[in-house]
Amino acid sequence: MREHFEIRDHDVAGRIGELEVPRADVTVETPALLPVVNPNVLTIEPSRLQSEFGAEILITNSYIIRSTDDVRERALDEGLHEMLDFDGAIMTDSGSFQLAEYGEIDVTTSEIIEFQHAIGSDIGTPVDIPTPPDVDYEQAERELETTQQALADAEAIDTGEMLVNAPVQGSTYPDLRERAGEQAAATDLDVFPVGAVVPMLNSYRYADMVDVVMGAKRGLGADCPVHLFGAGHPMMMALAVAAGCDLFDSAAYALMARDGRYLTVAGTEHLEELDYFPCSCPVCAEYTPAEVRAEDSDEQERLLAEHNLHVTFEELRRVKQALRSGSLLELVERRARGHPAMLDGYRALLDHADQLEAQDAVSKGTFFYTSHESARRPEVQRHHDRLDRLPVPDSLLVTESKPPSEHDYDAVWRVTPPFGPYPRALGETYPLTAEVPDRTDVAAETAAAAGVARLVAEHPESDVTLAHDDWADAALAELPATLDVENLADLGE
Amino acid sequence: MREHFEIRDHDVAGRIGELEVPRADVTVETPALLPVVNPNVLTIEPSRLQSEFGAEILITNSYIIRSTDDVRERALDEGLHEMLDFDGAIMTDSGSFQLAEYGEIDVTTSEIIEFQHAIGSDIGTPVDIPTPPDVDYEQAERELETTQQALADAEAIDTGEMLVNAPVQGSTYPDLRERAGEQAAATDLDVFPVGAVVPMLNSYRYADMVDVVMGAKRGLGADCPVHLFGAGHPMMMALAVAAGCDLFDSAAYALMARDGRYLTVAGTEHLEELDYFPCSCPVCAEYTPAEVRAEDSDEQERLLAEHNLHVTFEELRRVKQALRSGSLLELVERRARGHPAMLDGYRALLDHADQLEAQDAVSKGTFFYTSHESARRPEVQRHHDRLDRLPVPDSLLVTESKPPSEHDYDAVWRVTPPFGPYPRALGETYPLTAEVPDRTDVAAETAAAAGVARLVAEHPESDVTLAHDDWADAALAELPATLDVENLADLGE
Repeated sequence: MREHFEIRDHDVAGRIGELEVPRADVTVETPALLPVVNPNVLTIEPSRLQSEFGAEILITNSYIIRSTDDVRERALDEGLHEMLDFDGAIMTDSGSFQLAEYGEIDVTTSEIIEFQHAIGSDIGTPVDIPTPPDVDYEQAERELETTQQALADAEAIDTGEMLVNAPVQGSTYPDLRERAGEQAAATDLDVFPVGAVVPMLNSYRYADMVDVVMGAKRGLGADCPVHLFGAGHPMMMALAVAAGCDLFDSAAYALMARDGRYLTVAGTEHLEELDYFPCSCPVCAEYTPAEVRAEDSDEQERLLAEHNLHVTFEELRRVKQALRSGSLLELVERRARGHPAMLDGYRALLDHADQLEAQDAVSKGTFFYTSHESARRPEVQRHHDRLDRLPVPDSLLVTESKPPSEHDYDAVWRVTPPFGPYPRALGETYPLTAEVPDRTDVAAETAAAAGVARLVAEHPESDVTLAHDDWADAALAELPATLDVENLADLGE
Repeated sequence: MREHFEIRDHDVAGRIGELEVPRADVTVETPALLPVVNPNVLTIEPSRLQSEFGAEILITNSYIIRSTDDVRERALDEGLHEMLDFDGAIMTDSGSFQLAEYGEIDVTTSEIIEFQHAIGSDIGTPVDIPTPPDVDYEQAERELETTQQALADAEAIDTGEMLVNAPVQGSTYPDLRERAGEQAAATDLDVFPVGAVVPMLNSYRYADMVDVVMGAKRGLGADCPVHLFGAGHPMMMALAVAAGCDLFDSAAYALMARDGRYLTVAGTEHLEELDYFPCSCPVCAEYTPAEVRAEDSDEQERLLAEHNLHVTFEELRRVKQALRSGSLLELVERRARGHPAMLDGYRALLDHADQLEAQDAVSKGTFFYTSHESARRPEVQRHHDRLDRLPVPDSLLVTESKPPSEHDYDAVWRVTPPFGPYPRALGETYPLTAEVPDRTDVAAETAAAAGVARLVAEHPESDVTLAHDDWADAALAELPATLDVENLADLGE
């Protein structure tokens, strides 16, 4: 376990955790959203972020503070908490974003960490290199070395009670992300931002985001708190939590509002194009889109920012509730239909079913089969793995229907697509208590057939018969040619 | 057009309409939700339903009013609008539900219609027979005749400005629902409730609900306002609107609240089991589940009822917004992942793609391919139908990639799963501007292959070559054996 992070509950690779932030003397429940506060423009006052939206932690930029004379003096004088009027936890960024954006900044890791400490930050950040996607491998590797040096520099400083971020870079190379994760986890730093994902998210490359996070997680291991740096759109939060992210930050709520944009769990809308508000937050319950458009631009921006933040915290609560009740993947299924790129993200996540399976809870609420993708969930694979360990009688009927009233088999098992065969007694255990549609599909049947094939392969000494309910040819093609197969539909059942 | 209903906008078989209710002197925008108001128990005052939730119309039960002495006298004396303090439109039910529940009631259609008129109802209802699902065909047919007689009785009464419902029954027999729809549309009655769906919805038989509605719609035609009687759970509203329903009513918001139940767009939760509220309505933004549990039971019930109503009206606005922007089927896709039974409902809806296609808008926003089911959308079929009318050159390359820099074909068309081939110029028109995932699937490829096969079948004189990007065998099996096929993946593209 990391010293300041404890995991309380888990589902898929997501978890409910507690991040202890000693300098603020608060414990932040994760997954958490850190609203980004621009010290020069307080769209919503930090005290309201806490009281009305439930923010336990926020993030602000120490580089901007340091570069703005009067703000710097106030911050050094009063400390961040008093200056922002916020008594939750405060994380500070270092200027790495400005480095990536403008090519250079005038501060070293040691200097900025010292400054962050001096202004009373609770979680500081070194100056890492946010290598963008798709650079060549050598550049990504070279810049990763610079980031590692920044981590080492940060580690060498006595920061007292202030926690310190250890960013994980590596561009779009999962193996570099994994290596960076291993190196970061080997330091005694505290929080692990997966960096430079913003350009991927801005171009809806959710599949790449998943591959990068899963790479970083392989390196970091399960016990590190992971921050998906720069990410806080409600549409991708369930997916990112399922992949193992614990912290998010949102500048979007305010930046988008300035631009007349309205966030939803399925994407971003323009205020101009809305006839109805698809939301019931306090703003959307009180105003119609036409009424907001009739306000002056400052008020419009404030109302949109409040809605954007409400819908984001709402999704965070929804993700936590799903996680608690063991239905996080069901929520990801729903979110995957918000945009084809989200479907890519979910399909990419399922490509990592092995890695997810290792951390997923063994028993949950009820498995819902709600798409062809459901057939690729880690639970299906786990059930198939379990088949290898089950004792199988010499002669076995595996059937989708009830056991025949008279038969000569040693045992009769069930098969319910997408799951492979199982003894009836297991039917009361997760995931075999699944709810499945009446109108099943070829993906479910194919997964079930693969389970049957695996049982036969692992138990060549047993004589197995399969009775299926009119499975598709593509599913039947999974079965060994030697298997005895009956179609229940032909029997009029 | 029916006299009191005008359609303003449409998407799939859903529409934004205006129901003119002359006796209330209001025009109700549809799809609309009618909160059910029990005249004996006002969980939320009708005036608040209007001012805080935006209800333009409500429904109450004239049979209960008639059976309760003091309420009857007040209703006759003051009229419903004053008694309930509501100046929107008021629909009244007739006691058919009580008839179904208790086997008999002590009132005829003529009596109850006269009574509804006397208490100032704006939309009255005859005493029809809500035949339950799965009864034998003869019973369903016999009871339908009784319902037809009730419609005739209602039609014979002079109800002045009061509109009158013409319920459509027929149990789970789509052909009876269609016949009932034809007969109802042939009356001069005004609003068309599809009745007795509640037992189906209570047992999550959304596929049956869809088949029943589609049957009724075939009989009613496009211009009748359709009320899905007794239905108002937010999880099924998008599906029901896409099938062509215009009015919903909700007793659930109050009944569920009494029972500690909390509605969401993906189902029903128990307050007891919630750690977080997955919502940001004014109730959920102010309270945590633990705080609501700490209230006394009346206050708990009130808070839950308010949340339930907020989330229901929120979903109604979301459905309307989706409809306006031509993305209703995208919303149905999302809702189909709330429960396997909702997936059944969506799959059932797609079984009616022909019927939907006849009413669907030809051009919309952007088609999102977000599941295997997307390959069965009416737009895919319409594109394939259009192929028959396109002039095809003698030699044609259909490719998933760019046109080759040098070639001898007369023309080079594109193919983008799930759509079949199209000339490049059409690529800027709906639905070919679709967003599709990078990680495509066999359903999309199979639909595209079917489009290629259709083009070849309709134009046997043309010499067609297909260049695909590594399609699955099941997709390639759709292609005619004579077609010249290249796999771009083999060419290293």
